[in-house]
Amino acid sequence: MVDTRFHHFAGPIKLVDLVSAAGHAGMVPALGGEAPVHGAADLMAARPGDIGFISDKRYLPALAETRASFVVASAEFAALAPAGTLVLPSADPYADFVDLLEVLYPDNTARAARRAAKGPAGIDATAQLEEGVVVAPGAVIGANAEIGTGTVIGPNAVIGPGVAIGRHSVIGAGANLECTLAGDRVVIQPGARTGTEGFGFLPRPSGARKIPQLGRAILQEGVEIGANTTIDRGTLIDTVIGEGTKIDNLVQIAHNCRIGRHCQIAANAGLAGSTVIGDYVLMGGNCKSAGFLTIGEHSILYAGTAVSKDFPPQSRLAGVPARDVKQWRREVAALTRLGRRSQQS
Amino acid sequence: MVDTRFHHFAGPIKLVDLVSAAGHAGMVPALGGEAPVHGAADLMAARPGDIGFISDKRYLPALAETRASFVVASAEFAALAPAGTLVLPSADPYADFVDLLEVLYPDNTARAARRAAKGPAGIDATAQLEEGVVVAPGAVIGANAEIGTGTVIGPNAVIGPGVAIGRHSVIGAGANLECTLAGDRVVIQPGARTGTEGFGFLPRPSGARKIPQLGRAILQEGVEIGANTTIDRGTLIDTVIGEGTKIDNLVQIAHNCRIGRHCQIAANAGLAGSTVIGDYVLMGGNCKSAGFLTIGEHSILYAGTAVSKDFPPQSRLAGVPARDVKQWRREVAALTRLGRRSQQS
Amino acid sequence: MVDTRFHHFAGPIKLVDLVSAAGHAGMVPALGGEAPVHGAADLMAARPGDIGFISDKRYLPALAETRASFVVASAEFAALAPAGTLVLPSADPYADFVDLLEVLYPDNTARAARRAAKGPAGIDATAQLEEGVVVAPGAVIGANAEIGTGTVIGPNAVIGPGVAIGRHSVIGAGANLECTLAGDRVVIQPGARTGTEGFGFLPRPSGARKIPQLGRAILQEGVEIGANTTIDRGTLIDTVIGEGTKIDNLVQIAHNCRIGRHCQIAANAGLAGSTVIGDYVLMGGNCKSAGFLTIGEHSILYAGTAVSKDFPPQSRLAGVPARDVKQWRREVAALTRLGRRSQQS
Repeated sequence: MVDTRFHHFAGPIKLVDLVSAAGHAGMVPALGGEAPVHGAADLMAARPGDIGFISDKRYLPALAETRASFVVASAEFAALAPAGTLVLPSADPYADFVDLLEVLYPDNTARAARRAAKGPAGIDATAQLEEGVVVAPGAVIGANAEIGTGTVIGPNAVIGPGVAIGRHSVIGAGANLECTLAGDRVVIQPGARTGTEGFGFLPRPSGARKIPQLGRAILQEGVEIGANTTIDRGTLIDTVIGEGTKIDNLVQIAHNCRIGRHCQIAANAGLAGSTVIGDYVLMGGNCKSAGFLTIGEHSILYAGTAVSKDFPPQSRLAGVPARDVKQWRREVAALTRLGRRSQQS
Repeated sequence: MVDTRFHHFAGPIKLVDLVSAAGHAGMVPALGGEAPVHGAADLMAARPGDIGFISDKRYLPALAETRASFVVASAEFAALAPAGTLVLPSADPYADFVDLLEVLYPDNTARAARRAAKGPAGIDATAQLEEGVVVAPGAVIGANAEIGTGTVIGPNAVIGPGVAIGRHSVIGAGANLECTLAGDRVVIQPGARTGTEGFGFLPRPSGARKIPQLGRAILQEGVEIGANTTIDRGTLIDTVIGEGTKIDNLVQIAHNCRIGRHCQIAANAGLAGSTVIGDYVLMGGNCKSAGFLTIGEHSILYAGTAVSKDFPPQSRLAGVPARDVKQWRREVAALTRLGRRSQQS
Repeated sequence: MVDTRFHHFAGPIKLVDLVSAAGHAGMVPALGGEAPVHGAADLMAARPGDIGFISDKRYLPALAETRASFVVASAEFAALAPAGTLVLPSADPYADFVDLLEVLYPDNTARAARRAAKGPAGIDATAQLEEGVVVAPGAVIGANAEIGTGTVIGPNAVIGPGVAIGRHSVIGAGANLECTLAGDRVVIQPGARTGTEGFGFLPRPSGARKIPQLGRAILQEGVEIGANTTIDRGTLIDTVIGEGTKIDNLVQIAHNCRIGRHCQIAANAGLAGSTVIGDYVLMGGNCKSAGFLTIGEHSILYAGTAVSKDFPPQSRLAGVPARDVKQWRREVAALTRLGRRSQQS
């Protein structure tokens, strides 16, 4: 469910009123319109009272198990929803769901920014800092932020409204956190950004339409994030960096990625949205992943590997697109011979 | 013509005085030295009174059409200037033109920085903010900046002198804009930099000599720029991001790039100088372009594509260097077979 | 030797007390425990009184020449230390050396951050600014920093404790320098970070253990660093950017790199730790290097080159992994033919 700590919720609201406000009055079936909507959620995370959607068959397993009370779905998927889930029929489920989201969570980019910008210099009166927190000059700490003892907020860092940081953590100069929950002993190097809006747009004839980014960034205990690295928050679920994982400088982690525990990701990496990485994965510099894929635990990716499909645990990968490192070495050698031969002929 | 909103102009100045001050007294032909120079410009953008230069035959079409009154040119190109354009002969046109630029626009990196740094905390008295602008704590807004109603300037953001931002735009925490004109509903995510000095140097025996970066960055209506992304201003022309175009995190857009309307450029992309991209182009993560090339409208670049030459509209590209995606897939498959075969033999 | 300007030194301390405090009382041989330890150092840079370590045979030449008084070494290397160097035997030299470092230099990430954060807004009373320095609003200048005349510190920039900057340099908006010595006429574009903690961890069963990053970043005269670029400080030695070298936006330079003079490194480059680059090297956009390698002077790397081994001076490189550009072109052509042939068959 969307965390109202970060995203203002306009409900609960009756389903019939919600769809009406969103301009989709015809979407509600004959029965069920009086039920209250308590929030929007990813199908897997949804609880009774939540509304979700399905627009791609890869989410059919999630649909089968969802506890969501309401699901926006196209005709082809409608029959596959669990009994007890009310299906709202739609010819364009994602776009219609976005319409509903904008009613439920009315703080778009500009409104959220405006609210954050209206705070005072220094520490907001509603922020809760344990004893022993050190806040450097120029740092700005937003409303209802929570910071644990021993944590240091560096010069000119910006901690957004509602952000929670555990104990004995370090936020570097000029870094900033939005929509982020960070654990104990987390280190954010200077200039890093966490919990920023992900890159998600629906193509419309009139141009791209932003998909509200209503998730969070979760940095578990002992995580370190390098200088000028960017970690986007999730769209509906969270972006999660697992306990003890270390990320180097200038890395991009897109929305909805789930990085395991005790991974190391070297500089210039870029993980596209919804990449899932198991525990203890090591990634050399400049590794990339396409989205919606899984790299199994204890895998090693040599520098420059670009992963474009799932790989099992213990994989040893290299190349573009990624393949087993031994196969990659053979290909490099074969190509070298081919190039030399063409020189002679 | 160089925009004096951002770049202090020391003229108008008589041509003979200009070349003399630049240490090139011998450059002026017998006739015409008394004419005033009103500015420097790219050959295509030049108006009467402006001075331009040509150092590469790729600009010959521009030379043929230029309205510049004065052109610094090597002997081989001198005869190709339009009638009415006074040619200043040079054995090293770009370097000599830079000498002239430094007289016409004397604010080098240090002087411009000094002027910007001397402003007050908060909002400069000469900045013009429409009603309803929200400026967060720690933000610094320079002299003569203009900001439209509904726009939010985030905590610790820095808006340089003369920068103009339209209405209902959002500038994220710690972002900064220099030499930038941004339209309505523009979103700059935290830590992004726009209008910064491009990377342009002339090789000299004593080391690299900086080419003054006298253009602007133009972000049209509805543009979004990701966290920690960098958009350099143009050298003499502008760097332009077209209406509705969305750029993800950690992207580099070099000087003089012209991105069309409603494009989407995913994270970790890097476009070298003078890349031209048509409307509605989609670029997956980690795409790169060499400079001085054009990618036609409605093209799709798969993740990791590195473009090194022109491609027509509707191209479907992948690989390094970029080629048609089908050809790329065949090559990957052929290389895989080659690698497997070499294992068996 | 570790520069105590940046890293608080808890010694001098008797060797026997040091190893005892580090939990390695058994490490000291029968004789020599009373000698004072004056600092830790890389074997090549060590002076009498310093302690170093060796964990990899690539450092055997350094061991043979070291002037360190004490060396933590495994049994296999112990006999190779110079006479007069006291060997501290260890089954895990790097980890044990880190234990010693944490006693000698007790300021871990959090403690160093806390000390830097406790300074006042604006300019610390102990900072030494020559006349004619301009400090913009929101800039924070730490204890004992030194800044030369004519230098400009931009809005919201952060200059850490002890950082020294020469004359007529420019630090852009929101940039920050830690553990950095910068020369005259250095330009740091907005958002760049120098001297930040490098990415160095020892793998432990319980997760990654940070290796203290006790070096500096040295930016020689005339260096320029692009927007949002990151330059990590060294681990024990320094990261050095040579005189006149220009680095573009969004570049990562890892710890212990040594870049020569008058190089140009275009955007999106990433150099892994301990890369050594000769003078006058040119690197196109998006070049990468694996660590612990040397690229000879006057080499040219075409855009996208990924270097994975040493190359001599005057190399012309392209491809992944890097090879001679002519060979690379033949390979690309051969692969293209192969792909076309497979289409026909």
